[in-house]
Amino acid sequence: MAANSPPLLLAVVSFLSACQQGYYAKMVGRSRIKHNITPPAVNGPAEFERVFRAQQNCVEFYPLFLVFLWTAGSFFNQELAAIIGLCYMYARHVYFRGYVDSAKGRLPGFYSSLAALFCLMILGTAGITNRALDEYLDFDLLEKIRQLF
Amino acid sequence: MAANSPPLLLAVVSFLSACQQGYYAKMVGRSRIKHNITPPAVNGPAEFERVFRAQQNCVEFYPLFLVFLWTAGSFFNQELAAIIGLCYMYARHVYFRGYVDSAKGRLPGFYSSLAALFCLMILGTAGITNRALDEYLDFDLLEKIRQLF
Amino acid sequence: MAANSPPLLLAVVSFLSACQQGYYAKMVGRSRIKHNITPPAVNGPAEFERVFRAQQNCVEFYPLFLVFLWTAGSFFNQELAAIIGLCYMYARHVYFRGYVDSAKGRLPGFYSSLAALFCLMILGTAGITNRALDEYLDFDLLEKIRQLF
Repeated sequence: MAANSPPLLLAVVSFLSACQQGYYAKMVGRSRIKHNITPPAVNGPAEFERVFRAQQNCVEFYPLFLVFLWTAGSFFNQELAAIIGLCYMYARHVYFRGYVDSAKGRLPGFYSSLAALFCLMILGTAGITNRALDEYLDFDLLEKIRQLF
Repeated sequence: MAANSPPLLLAVVSFLSACQQGYYAKMVGRSRIKHNITPPAVNGPAEFERVFRAQQNCVEFYPLFLVFLWTAGSFFNQELAAIIGLCYMYARHVYFRGYVDSAKGRLPGFYSSLAALFCLMILGTAGITNRALDEYLDFDLLEKIRQLF
Repeated sequence: MAANSPPLLLAVVSFLSACQQGYYAKMVGRSRIKHNITPPAVNGPAEFERVFRAQQNCVEFYPLFLVFLWTAGSFFNQELAAIIGLCYMYARHVYFRGYVDSAKGRLPGFYSSLAALFCLMILGTAGITNRALDEYLDFDLLEKIRQLF
């Protein structure tokens, strides 16, 4: 039936985060209606501009997040990457809510989302390095560490 | 030769839609030349702003579309997902054409593209749920339904 | 441990380019601080607007680049696609540096990045065509060409 399936947990987190992106786009649409701002205009009251920029920032970071999530999940550990991915989504939720309220309110969520991205980046680097050592030097570091315990 | 190949139809639709994105970027460039708007400016006559916003909106939705396409295609049915993906591309084409003409002209294409995304989302949800039931509860719902006929 | 791993070289190039995207986002943040532009504002001195537009343009092309990279690498040749991917990243680097200096400075890097994208597109088209011929007509063109030498 279905094509050879990709890892389920990474797919679930990607799917949920795509829904979240859709939700943010909807929020911008609602804010357009509320403040009576017809496209193609993207300027207006500060409240609308905050909603718009909050969504734009999420859009900018989304492909980056997906790449880090799949790298960490494919080369290091799927479960761990999926959990950090959910944390990222929650941080983005806090960011968006905060930004809608005030420009300063965006900061806690933004820094948390950067922290989650940073964790995924570290795991991705570790996973890729390990896989490269294994492939080119036949040396599986993670396996060796596991054998110590 | 090539690395272990991903599902062909999903790859073809992704590839074509990426070409479409490139085409939209080119349209913005042409509109810049026509209206003599040098970067980094993004403001100008309403006609240019409509072209620019049309492309921006396509950019915003593109990663979301790819995630929904691949989830639906990998976990539910590749052929069906590819066909809906082509419908999405056509809806975006109508959207872009319409938006270039007038701000109101964007609506039919936009709503159609949302409908296509919604279909992919439903298929994706069904596919992921089925796969999760299968993996964690050893219960393949789609297979059971197929056996009824 | 890790889920069934995707092709290593494509993953490495994707990962590095995602880090590059993160770097550009950071540059915008720095430019905001330097010119004292608080979000959600995106207008300001020409220098800030150039940095901002440079990053925005990279964001717009990023998903497109990833799709072309993976199509070329999965269906044609992973090593070749990875090398062109690195060229694209370098071209984007030149683009960003040049754009920060002046609006005209963006052009050399921009045209180079388009050339790299175009190469990936050609490879992707060749790879997909070959795979489609193989799958539907049982005719492996690339294999036949290889046998000639």
